Amino acid sequence: MALARHTDPQRPYTRRSFSPLFVQGRAWLAQRFVDAGLTTRVDPAGNLVGRRDALRPDARALMVGSHTDTVPEGGRFDGIVGVLAGLEIARALADADLTLEHAFEVVDFLAEEPSDFGVSCIGSRALVGALSAEQLASTSPQGLSLGQTIRALGGDPARIGATPQRRDVAAFLELHIEQGPVLEATHTQVGIVTSIVGITRLEMVFDGAAAHAGTAPMRGRQDAGVAAAGAVLAVRELAQQIDAAGQGYFVATCGIVDVRPGASNVVPGQARVVVDARSEFAAAMERFVDLLTVRVQAIAADSGCTLARWQLLSRNGPTACDPGLQQTFEDAAQSLGLSHRRMASGAGHDAAFVARIAPMGMLFVPCREGRSHCPEEWLEPEQLARGAEVMLAALLRLDGAAAPSDGGVAP
Amino acid sequence: MALARHTDPQRPYTRRSFSPLFVQGRAWLAQRFVDAGLTTRVDPAGNLVGRRDALRPDARALMVGSHTDTVPEGGRFDGIVGVLAGLEIARALADADLTLEHAFEVVDFLAEEPSDFGVSCIGSRALVGALSAEQLASTSPQGLSLGQTIRALGGDPARIGATPQRRDVAAFLELHIEQGPVLEATHTQVGIVTSIVGITRLEMVFDGAAAHAGTAPMRGRQDAGVAAAGAVLAVRELAQQIDAAGQGYFVATCGIVDVRPGASNVVPGQARVVVDARSEFAAAMERFVDLLTVRVQAIAADSGCTLARWQLLSRNGPTACDPGLQQTFEDAAQSLGLSHRRMASGAGHDAAFVARIAPMGMLFVPCREGRSHCPEEWLEPEQLARGAEVMLAALLRLDGAAAPSDGGVAP
Repeated sequence: MALARHTDPQRPYTRRSFSPLFVQGRAWLAQRFVDAGLTTRVDPAGNLVGRRDALRPDARALMVGSHTDTVPEGGRFDGIVGVLAGLEIARALADADLTLEHAFEVVDFLAEEPSDFGVSCIGSRALVGALSAEQLASTSPQGLSLGQTIRALGGDPARIGATPQRRDVAAFLELHIEQGPVLEATHTQVGIVTSIVGITRLEMVFDGAAAHAGTAPMRGRQDAGVAAAGAVLAVRELAQQIDAAGQGYFVATCGIVDVRPGASNVVPGQARVVVDARSEFAAAMERFVDLLTVRVQAIAADSGCTLARWQLLSRNGPTACDPGLQQTFEDAAQSLGLSHRRMASGAGHDAAFVARIAPMGMLFVPCREGRSHCPEEWLEPEQLARGAEVMLAALLRLDGAAAPSDGGVAP
Repeated sequence: MALARHTDPQRPYTRRSFSPLFVQGRAWLAQRFVDAGLTTRVDPAGNLVGRRDALRPDARALMVGSHTDTVPEGGRFDGIVGVLAGLEIARALADADLTLEHAFEVVDFLAEEPSDFGVSCIGSRALVGALSAEQLASTSPQGLSLGQTIRALGGDPARIGATPQRRDVAAFLELHIEQGPVLEATHTQVGIVTSIVGITRLEMVFDGAAAHAGTAPMRGRQDAGVAAAGAVLAVRELAQQIDAAGQGYFVATCGIVDVRPGASNVVPGQARVVVDARSEFAAAMERFVDLLTVRVQAIAADSGCTLARWQLLSRNGPTACDPGLQQTFEDAAQSLGLSHRRMASGAGHDAAFVARIAPMGMLFVPCREGRSHCPEEWLEPEQLARGAEVMLAALLRLDGAAAPSDGGVAP
């Protein structure tokens, strides 16, 4: 709630990456890190990192983290709980005066949500060498490059390249609200993530012929709005088919439907649809894209339109969570007497990128009605506390499982 | 082409009612009226009227006219040719030094196209007492009332009421581009309009539940975009059915499809669709609205949404053209050796309102590929000249058919 005060008062809760409000929130957070005894710095990628050293200065790190930026009119928990649970763990370690075998780090990753630079997960991408030079050079509408912006936040864009910045991370754990309805509906206290879905975004544009809504007879119309409507229903139908086929978690959405020129008395001449499809398994995604490709061609032809654009905007494969860490979470939840279930994450997360440099695990806590990315986003304090307890218990198990000198965490 | 120079240079051809460009265009036109020997004034409704008197000062008027405002990025001919054909007839009468038995009037009706005030055909409505006090009091986004705006253009809103402003119009004729493909496709030189379709506009809003596109499973979604897509296809299917049933001309269009919040990673929580339906016969329209009302309820239920709004925005019945004037046009075309056909007008026109105070006739000229409301709108100069010739020939027949002292034009 303290961090949530750093919001655009007209549009709670809005704390967009790179905004003055975000910088304020970061300053608040950095002071809390320091107060909890963490050595605090901004890494080259612009991530805020708080570290509690191990006895041995070269000890590998157990890292937890998420992000504190929000979507416009977003919530107080998406991302934020993952960072603040890390802060709470640091406080608990300090209170107990406990020094782990591993270093412990809490990270606030930069700009997880889509920003003016048109790319999400900027900080976690940069950390692992997955932010391209093109992305780093991309400019905001204000004309600043992403590199310049990262430097202004205390990062060092010259050190962001194609190789990982860290090779000393023993494991990475991220706590996050589920952002969906499953845990609440099944009265489950924590979700142990098996896989972060792959996300494919496709854009289609139908070109028809704008015409007067009164004088163009029904026969012979080239109505791009009709084509777009057909595409929306086809996406839904195919997604339901694939979901029902039992090939893992699958969803697809047409969130952008843009019909032009958008006047009541003009037959639409152009329409754009953006499809967001998410799959636990790569094969199901391939099947969806193949089937949809055939369908949209037929839909264009049936409505007298042409498929002027059929573009893959982005494609990220699914990321499996480390099986050993899934087991660690399960054992930790079990030991605390908490109900748990394994489930896919339908949302992308920083963890999917960090998985490139370390074993990765994700833990979900419920949120009310599954709502997220909206001001109504909510979970009860006890629900969050249960998640943080599982995180701490898992970390302690990991710390005990293998000394850093053994080369890190099993398996 | 001279009038078309008064356009927003970034968006040719844009000359929206009430805009500075419209006022410039009107000033240009008023000077042309004066040059053609017309007594020129702005009437209380804000219409620009040029008059060539008859010998008798109390002679009834043969009126021609249309409008010079455009839709955004519209064309150079829609409406405009009806006013300029009137100007050309005035010039021809002046050149021939011909004084008719009737007065002759050319009218540029105010704001035929939808404007910031949300109502079309403002000038012709006001002329015949069909502009309501509510409409006159409605305000633009800039905060000015329609009445204030009409006064600024030289009109007198205090004199706009529920009764017609004119009772001395012997006949009204409007020349217009067809705005559809029929005349060109059938190689016909002029179209003689039998009826102006009735227009019904309906707005529906589906309320669903915005959700994260990744974490909301397919089952249980309340996707308002899916509901809107179903509605667009239902409108198309019903319109095709009714059109095919042979109950006169029928078309229906979803020109506005607005899906919110409009982000690729959010399941749409709300969607708005505006339907524009047009029918030559009132019974076919009733049938369409009845069938669609049932369908949209089912569509909302099937997609887990509610039909939060189902609103009749406007409903105007069809207007038959005067049978005697149809015959006069046919005789005139015949005498000039021009091909002609009778047809419904799928577009609304000022003529539909003027029909409330005088016998009304409409004449169509072809336009290239039937395109209108777009910069590509075009007809060849000869095609326009043929239309103007039929207009003049029809006027001379009407003028000779009955002296004003006889009480006007037959039948």
